[in-house]
This record gives sequence, C-alpha cells and structure tokens, in this order.
Amino acid sequence: MKTIGVVTSGGDAPGMNAAIRAVVRTAYAKGFQVLGFERGWEGLIKNNFRRLDPRSVGGIIRSGGTILLTSRCPEFKTLDGVRKAAANLAADKVDGLVVIGGDGSFRGALALSRETDVLVVGVPATIDNDVYGTEETIGFDTAVNTCVAEVDKIKDTAISHERVFVVEVMGRKRGFLALAVGLTVGAEVILVPEVAYDKNEVFETVKANAAKGKKSGIIVAAEGIGDTRKLAEEIEENTGAEVRLSIVGYAQRGGSPTARSRLLASLFANEAVNLLAQNIGDRVVGLQKGEITSIDLEDSCKNEKPLNLELLNLAKVLAT
Amino acid sequence: MKTIGVVTSGGDAPGMNAAIRAVVRTAYAKGFQVLGFERGWEGLIKNNFRRLDPRSVGGIIRSGGTILLTSRCPEFKTLDGVRKAAANLAADKVDGLVVIGGDGSFRGALALSRETDVLVVGVPATIDNDVYGTEETIGFDTAVNTCVAEVDKIKDTAISHERVFVVEVMGRKRGFLALAVGLTVGAEVILVPEVAYDKNEVFETVKANAAKGKKSGIIVAAEGIGDTRKLAEEIEENTGAEVRLSIVGYAQRGGSPTARSRLLASLFANEAVNLLAQNIGDRVVGLQKGEITSIDLEDSCKNEKPLNLELLNLAKVLAT
Amino acid sequence: MKTIGVVTSGGDAPGMNAAIRAVVRTAYAKGFQVLGFERGWEGLIKNNFRRLDPRSVGGIIRSGGTILLTSRCPEFKTLDGVRKAAANLAADKVDGLVVIGGDGSFRGALALSRETDVLVVGVPATIDNDVYGTEETIGFDTAVNTCVAEVDKIKDTAISHERVFVVEVMGRKRGFLALAVGLTVGAEVILVPEVAYDKNEVFETVKANAAKGKKSGIIVAAEGIGDTRKLAEEIEENTGAEVRLSIVGYAQRGGSPTARSRLLASLFANEAVNLLAQNIGDRVVGLQKGEITSIDLEDSCKNEKPLNLELLNLAKVLAT
Amino acid sequence: MKTIGVVTSGGDAPGMNAAIRAVVRTAYAKGFQVLGFERGWEGLIKNNFRRLDPRSVGGIIRSGGTILLTSRCPEFKTLDGVRKAAANLAADKVDGLVVIGGDGSFRGALALSRETDVLVVGVPATIDNDVYGTEETIGFDTAVNTCVAEVDKIKDTAISHERVFVVEVMGRKRGFLALAVGLTVGAEVILVPEVAYDKNEVFETVKANAAKGKKSGIIVAAEGIGDTRKLAEEIEENTGAEVRLSIVGYAQRGGSPTARSRLLASLFANEAVNLLAQNIGDRVVGLQKGEITSIDLEDSCKNEKPLNLELLNLAKVLAT
Repeated sequence: MKTIGVVTSGGDAPGMNAAIRAVVRTAYAKGFQVLGFERGWEGLIKNNFRRLDPRSVGGIIRSGGTILLTSRCPEFKTLDGVRKAAANLAADKVDGLVVIGGDGSFRGALALSRETDVLVVGVPATIDNDVYGTEETIGFDTAVNTCVAEVDKIKDTAISHERVFVVEVMGRKRGFLALAVGLTVGAEVILVPEVAYDKNEVFETVKANAAKGKKSGIIVAAEGIGDTRKLAEEIEENTGAEVRLSIVGYAQRGGSPTARSRLLASLFANEAVNLLAQNIGDRVVGLQKGEITSIDLEDSCKNEKPLNLELLNLAKVLAT
Repeated sequence: MKTIGVVTSGGDAPGMNAAIRAVVRTAYAKGFQVLGFERGWEGLIKNNFRRLDPRSVGGIIRSGGTILLTSRCPEFKTLDGVRKAAANLAADKVDGLVVIGGDGSFRGALALSRETDVLVVGVPATIDNDVYGTEETIGFDTAVNTCVAEVDKIKDTAISHERVFVVEVMGRKRGFLALAVGLTVGAEVILVPEVAYDKNEVFETVKANAAKGKKSGIIVAAEGIGDTRKLAEEIEENTGAEVRLSIVGYAQRGGSPTARSRLLASLFANEAVNLLAQNIGDRVVGLQKGEITSIDLEDSCKNEKPLNLELLNLAKVLAT
Repeated sequence: MKTIGVVTSGGDAPGMNAAIRAVVRTAYAKGFQVLGFERGWEGLIKNNFRRLDPRSVGGIIRSGGTILLTSRCPEFKTLDGVRKAAANLAADKVDGLVVIGGDGSFRGALALSRETDVLVVGVPATIDNDVYGTEETIGFDTAVNTCVAEVDKIKDTAISHERVFVVEVMGRKRGFLALAVGLTVGAEVILVPEVAYDKNEVFETVKANAAKGKKSGIIVAAEGIGDTRKLAEEIEENTGAEVRLSIVGYAQRGGSPTARSRLLASLFANEAVNLLAQNIGDRVVGLQKGEITSIDLEDSCKNEKPLNLELLNLAKVLAT
Repeated sequence: MKTIGVVTSGGDAPGMNAAIRAVVRTAYAKGFQVLGFERGWEGLIKNNFRRLDPRSVGGIIRSGGTILLTSRCPEFKTLDGVRKAAANLAADKVDGLVVIGGDGSFRGALALSRETDVLVVGVPATIDNDVYGTEETIGFDTAVNTCVAEVDKIKDTAISHERVFVVEVMGRKRGFLALAVGLTVGAEVILVPEVAYDKNEVFETVKANAAKGKKSGIIVAAEGIGDTRKLAEEIEENTGAEVRLSIVGYAQRGGSPTARSRLLASLFANEAVNLLAQNIGDRVVGLQKGEITSIDLEDSCKNEKPLNLELLNLAKVLAT
C-alpha cells in the first residue's frame, strides 16, 4: 500500500470531514499518501482529485458537510462509468480506496471493486443509519440531536397553545431517525415506514391523552409513512384537537458533528486504513456489539438492517 | 393601583415568560397583587385566572412558551365577548391589565379598553417584529437566531452538494424575520412580502454566482411571498442549478429566549407596570431610538411599521 | 412488587430526570406505585418522599438536574444512618429501590442492601463514566458534548491569537471525559490521571507543532492530573508559545441531556424496574457490548473500570 | 480612495470576520481594493498583508475568531513602531485603514493617525462592550449569550444540589458583560467593578433567600471585582449555604457570532468604508440611539463609557 484514495459519496452527513481527516492522518502515520477525489464518483470518472496531507485536513473535525464535496452521479450507475473510474484509479496508481457514504455508495463501491484490483473499503456515513453491518453510522447521532433540539422548541409552542404537532423527520424508507427522535423527545406517537399504522389508533391516543388533561402532544413521523399533511388534518378532524405539521428541513443533514459522530468517524476511518494496510478490501467498517469491526462489502449491500421494534413498544410505555 | 392582571395572547414568542416574571415581580415590589389570566382572552371571558406571586414565576426566565398558555379566541372579536371580559375584570377588582402579545392582541386590547375603566397597557411580544411603535419585539431576536442556526447547518449541505437552497421562514405579511435572517446568514437573495420580486432577477443572480464559481447559495424567503416550492422548481428549470426547498418549522416560535429577548421582556414589562402605577393606560411599551418608552395604543394599532429597505440593498452588496 | 422507591444520589448528571420518568412510567405500566425520595440518601433517612405518578414526570425528559434533588449525605456513611433508611423503607412498605447515581451511590446502595430485604438496583448516572459494568453512564455523552462545544469556541481564539490552550475538564480520578473530549476536538495532547505524563514530552509536542507552522493548539487535561495552572506556565516558559488556561466549569454537569443520554436513561431505568418486577435485586444496570444488561452490585462496587489506552495513541496519530 | 487596509487588533471577538467580510465587499462595490494586514499592528510594522477580494471572504460571516489573526504588539506602543507602520502604509499606497478592535486598538489607531496621512476609522469589536461612542460593540451579544447558556446549565446543578454558585465572567475593569448576564439569567446578586460592594449585603441576600425557601442561587461577578474564590468561601462561612465557584473560560471570546453580532459587524464595517469613501477619517463607528453613526476617534479614546446603574437596581427587583 502506497497510495490511498478517499471519496465521499451520496448525501452528506455530519462527521464526513472527521472521517476524511482520520483517513489522511492514519495513512500518513503509515507512510502512505492520500488522494481526495472530488464530488463523489464524478471525481473518479473525471479524475478530479487533490493531494491531501495532514495539514490540509487541519481544523475540519468540527465542520459539517464534506470538504471533498459530494454529488449524485448517474454515469457511475453504468458499467462504462465504473470502468472509467477504475481506469483512473489505475492511472493514478491508487492501491486502496476508502468510500465514505451510505448504502447506495456501497453498492457503487461493490460495482467498482469488480472492475479493479484496487482494494475498496466502505466507511458508513449517513444520517439514515440504514447500513447493514453497523449499529450506528457517522452522522446519525448528530441528526438525532438536531431533530431533538427542534422538537424541544416545538414543545414550548405545543404546550402553550395546547396543540398536537406532527413532526416529520427524514427517512424515506427507514425509521431509525424517527424512532430515536420520538423516543428521546417523549413523543406520544412514533410512525415509521417499517410498520403499517392504523389512523384510528392515532386518533384514540390523541383523544385518550386529552381526556387525561394532556392536550398537547408530539407525533414524530418519518417522511416515508405517507402524506403527513393529510394525517395532521385527519387527526384534527377526528379528535377535536388543534393540530399542526412541522417538517424538519435540511438542517438535519448539516451542522457541526456531535462528539459521538466525530468519534465514530475517527474510529471507522482509522480501521478502514488499517484494513487497507493489511491488503484487505471489499469490507465495510462498522460498530458491532459496541466494538469497531467490519463485514463483507457484498453482505452489507445485500442485507437490510432491522429496526428494533421493541423500542417502539418501550416508547409507548414511556409516553403514557 | 392594587391589582394587576396579566395575559398572553396570540402566537407564543420566546420571552413571554420573562415578561410575566417581570410584571409579577415589579408589581410586588410596588405592593400590588397580580392575577394571571389563562389561555389569552378566553381566560378573561371565562374568568379563569390564578394568583401569581414572586415565587410562582421562579425559574421561568429561561423557558420558551408561556406559563399562562395562549389561544386564538373568536368570541373576543365580538362586542359581547369583550363586555364579558370587562365585566370579569370589574368583578375581580383588577385596576390595570398588561397584555403581552402582537398587533392582533393589541387590537383586542383597544376594544377592551373602550368597554372598561381598567387601564390597559400592551407589551409587544411576537417573533414577527411587526408592532408599530417599537424597533424590536420580544421573541424576535430568538427567532432570528433559531433561523440563522438552521441556515448555517443547511449551508454545510449546500456547499457540499453545490446546491442552491430556498429557505422559507415565517412572515405571512411582513419580512422583518426574513430580512434579518438573510442579512446575517449572507443570503444571496432575500425575498419579503413588502417588495414585489422579479423571478428573472433571481434567476440571473443564481446564474451570475455560478459563473463566478459560487455554485451553492441561499435564498431566504418569507412565507408571504407566495409559493416557495414552485419558486424553487422554477429556479432549477431556469438556471441549471440544483435547487432544494427547506421550510423552517414551528421551532422558530419556541426555545429558550436569547439574552436580548429576555432583556427586552424584562425592560418592557417593568415599564408597563410603571405606567400602570402612574395610572397611565392605553399605551404600548416599546423600544425607540434604543430607549424604553411607550406610544398610544390606538396609534400602535392603526399604523404599520415600515421595513428598512436600505438593508435589502446592503444585503445585496454584502452577498456579492 | 407493589411499591418502588426511587432516589438520585451524589453529583447530578444530565438524564437523571429522564431516568426518573422511565422508572415511574414503567412501574405504572406494571401496576406498581412509586415513591420518590428527596435529596439523595438524606430523603431515606428523614423519610422525605413524594408520590410520583405518570403525570408528575411529564415534560422532564429534556431537563437537566434532578427533580428529586440530590445531596452528599455523611450520615449515610454510618451504619446507624443506613439502618434508619432501611427502617423507613420497611415502614413505607417499599418492595424495591432504584438508586440513580455513580459509584459512590452504589457503595451506599450495597451497604443499604445488607441491612434490608428491600431489593436494590443501581442505574449508573454520572458525567465521569467511571462505573464498572457499563460502557457508558447516563450524562456522560452530554458532558462530553458540552465540553466539545466549549473547546470548539476556544479554538477560534487559539487560532486567531496563535496560542496554545490548556483546557481542564472534570475528572479527579478518572480520564474518561478528558479522553473523549480530547479525541473529538482534535487535541494535540490529552492528559489523564491514569497515565503519568512527562512534561518534556508535552514541551516537545508543542515545539514540534510550532516548527510545522501549527502555532495554536489544544491540550485537554483532566483535573486530576495535577496543577494545570502551573503546567500552562511551564509550557509557556519552555516552548516560547503563548499559553492560556481555561477551566470548563460546572456547566459540564447540567444542561438538557443529549438524545443519547436520554436514551440510555430510558433503557437503563426500564431495565431496572424489569429486574425488580422479577424480584431480582443487588444489580447494577449497564451497557455491555452495546446491549442493555446488568451486573452484580458488589462486583460493580469492587472493580475499577479500565480506560481504553489505545484511544490515547489513536488521538496522537490523528492530531499529527 | 483606491486602496483600503483592514486590520483586527487586540482580543478577538465573535463577528470580527463578519466585519472583515463587509469591509471587503463594500469596498469592492465601490471599486476599491483591500489589503488585509495580519496579526494586528505587527502586520503593519512587518508589512505582512494579503489581498482580499469578495471570494476570499466567502463563508466567514458565521466563523468566530479572525481570519486576519490578531496579537498584542508591544512595539506598536513605541513611536518608532508606529512610524514603521505609517511608512509601510505609504509604501503600500493605502489610502484608508479600517481598525477592527477595542479601546486599546483605537488608542493605537489614534497614535498612527498622527504619523500618517492615511485616513483611519475604527470599528468597535470587543466582548467587553467598553468603547465610548457606541451602545454596543461587535461580539458583545455573542459573549452574553455564551455566558447565559453556561449559567442556565449551572442552574440545573444549583437547583438540584440547593447550592449557591458564584459565576465569574470576563471584565477586568468593566461590568457590562456581568450586568447583562446577571440580568438575563435572573441572578440574585450582580457584582461589577464600577460599584464597590458590601460583603455583608451579599450574605444577607443569600440568607434572606434561604429563609424564603430559595436555597439555590446565582451570583454573577465580573473578574475585576476581586478574588471570587475567596468571596465564595466567605459566603459559605457566613451564611451556611453550600457555595461553589464556576469561572466561565475563554469560550466567551469565541464561537459563531449571534445574528446581532453579525448584523452590527455588517453595518459598522459598511459605514466605516462609507466614511473613507467620503475621505473622512479619525472616526469610530458606533450605534447611538439605535442608529449607525460615528464619533471622533480621539473623543472615543479619551472618554469612558458609563454603565447603566439603573439596570442593577432593576435586576434586584426582578430577582426578588
């Protein structure tokens, strides 16, 4: 191993910069050099990169976003695009590539790995926390805390106006974020895409709370559960409660990473370079049983991480 | 003056609790007692109040929302409703009433004042900052900072993805919040309801920035400027930029008040009680030329506070 | 199991309220009632308690501190004091007691358990993270993030003035907090009580960084490493760097808990009541290998949790 | 006016970067170029500068610290040093200089102005708020909010442990920060260097509060009032209260500026360039009666800004 490439791909997540920093500095400590490809897969296809040394990643541990930029890259979904990337990696004499991103990025990494001898290791970074093989992804803890801070503020208004708020958080397919937010703000109801919900049950919960004197309430819903605006209207119509919808916006994806997102980023990226240094590729780094480890790249791509449904039940008990 | 009533009305704003605290403690220092009416005008109509003493407002200076609760009250828009409120104030032997709220609340206060001998003083508290007679309202500074923190996070994503974001903030009729946010986040474009805007000008700005190599950008828009979702789509279609919409939600109205919102709340509420102690009513307390003062209640209701349009020009220069 | 007592003891930690809430609501869901003893062990000795029902813990999930108050209680260190507490628990017909606190509180819990038939279960809550049997305590994540936010601000000044800052964080005997903070702010040096340090090595690091053009720097030190003021002076004298000391104050112990502190609090407290419901006592709940579990109370008291020294080495590599 | 120099001097303050940005962009809009001198007066003496254009200040509006760096510069206190700076300004063909800093920096600016034809305008930026001629300085609002957030956290511990905290904030000579913080956290006692205090009065307040059942409390003290550690000990000895000292550290000087600090920075810097464009020098920009204006540089240096002592009395009433 002499030259390591690093790329951030897909949606940005807080802690990606901390991961880039750890890739670069771990690599230099081992005597490797690092090329940072820009704008995700596009940078590999166009061979746009800059050399990164320990000084060039100074101070970025606390910054949201990614200094390498990121993008969606349709061309990389074609075999032709993947081969261009592979050719550039060969031309640049890259020995190993660290791909920082989510499950979509890892599918790209797998496709690339099949067309090149360059070793490829994935570092899971996405606010969605939906990567198989790791209990937590870089950026998830930050996004949860951003949402919690926002809901805590909404609660002030909910209580003062005795209103019920439906708060929509990100998660088109998965409810990890909604579940974690709902549990930690004390939401009366949590709706996730993994579990079909019965509107009448929601109405009953709202009415039962009102009957107990608890006229305000928070319903946390993942965007993937359907039309939250319509849901809010239906709750109002069917319960007599005053209901408002608040959609947590793109702020969920940005901001200075929390300590935990920075820590995971540092540990994951360090492990990724350690694997490459041992000439191990086709892995995704992860946290399992509280330990830093890794799993096979293809396994990570082909499996779906389960949501802990027991926590949904616990949330109900605790929001009594 | 022996008994002072206090009520919070209309939308809640951070700092209302600090104002309630200052009303109560200033009143007690003068030997008055205080009745806190609950749920806005509804509390006067239904004669729902609780006695507030200095201990009962301990610790609330840092809390968002209002411990007195608030609501919209259609009945108070009828003369009958106003007269019920006046009768209850008389029955409760209230000598002076402090109304904490926005311009809608002050129109209610004016209507009430015409039906009662009770002295009425308004304390401007609204995140919209649209009360004539004061340079700033309680809660405005907090809402601005909440929005700025959110846009700062969105900027991480905007820069990393080289996207333009349209960020919608509250303000159905007025652009004080949008202007302050836009200026302090360094928005490339600021759109307010007071100024008709030319879509082509927005497109040109986005294209000119891209030509200068500044592919990311922030457009801050007040909700009152029209359909922001459509605007975002049109910018994307007409400029080639990748554009996203992010709507800052109800968190704008809540949260622990900033130091400035707490300070204004304390000074305004103190002045309101001072006016009542001098048997002066029909006033709205305010900040003018940096000093605490007050203006005639009817004048405040009948006039519209102007937006400083020079700041819009300055924002353009500074976002070059 | 019919009646559960709950007490918070020792230094407060963010998330104690979330734990109290989860104890109460889990207990009620099982048909138990809950007595909340006030001011730590003092409340048991003086039999000061209040009944807690699900409504009485509404809204506290987001509050720092403890609604049950806490104190140091010298009398409980005597057998006489412990026996008074045991007698009161018997008189109050308490079947199980949840003790929320740190290792000192658990030693008290063990002493109490030996004098009573009441089942005792510990819930680890301390910003020091020094409880054997759990990878993380309630409040630790919050304290780390509070310190990180503070150091991030100090970095602005460090960079602008090209100064080295020694930042002292809490930890008289243990360096968990200092290590986590140092790693996640990118500190050039981390000093913990568990590892004797060589001043000359610190001087060399500061001088080597300056030689590389990195004149600013952060040294995170646990309070237990000795006189940090003297250390700062010696670094200045021996390196030519401008050095300042900043001590992170009591804010470390307070503030709204992070999502993770709230989550751990909810899971730990829920498990504690589950254990009692199964008539299991003399346990300390904890997180092991990422799972909620528990260990023997006496084991927890007698063993010392090891600090992960590998992380110290990683921090050095990453701060290159 | 063709070339404008800009320098940040003395202690850094949040918003200095926003001011640099506004200097550069206002200047470019007028067709001027800008030289940024580095490390305060040292940069003028050593003629270290970089050219700043609108792109080079992109994204800095939200950053604490100063991209131009700052330092204390003893040599500039000598006439020789000042003349070197004047000679460099002449050699660089600088027509006008914007000095961003506090009162010490403005005394330097005045000395420089006497040795050069270059027009000099001051922009007040210091967390101490102690510049004569302006109601508020850049950075003050941010520092107040940083301290308030810290005290709010300390309050959680104060209440839970029923302790009195002495919280020391910055301010060696002046109490603007302590007063603003004390008033907005609801401190029971506020101690400022401008007013001699009677320890017995402090003891009496603490005892009277305890007698009312308010055992916790916050005493905010400026560092310039004397030995706060000794004060804390004496309060404990004389009142029976449990007392702790917490010193708010250097975080007060850093962090992302609040909206208000960014706004003042933008307005002040814009006005400074406007003055230079009109060939007006020897001024300090400021906020007076809520309006942007300026005063004579020498007047600003020679006069002392008064502290509003009425606010101290108000704070007492409101903390009853």
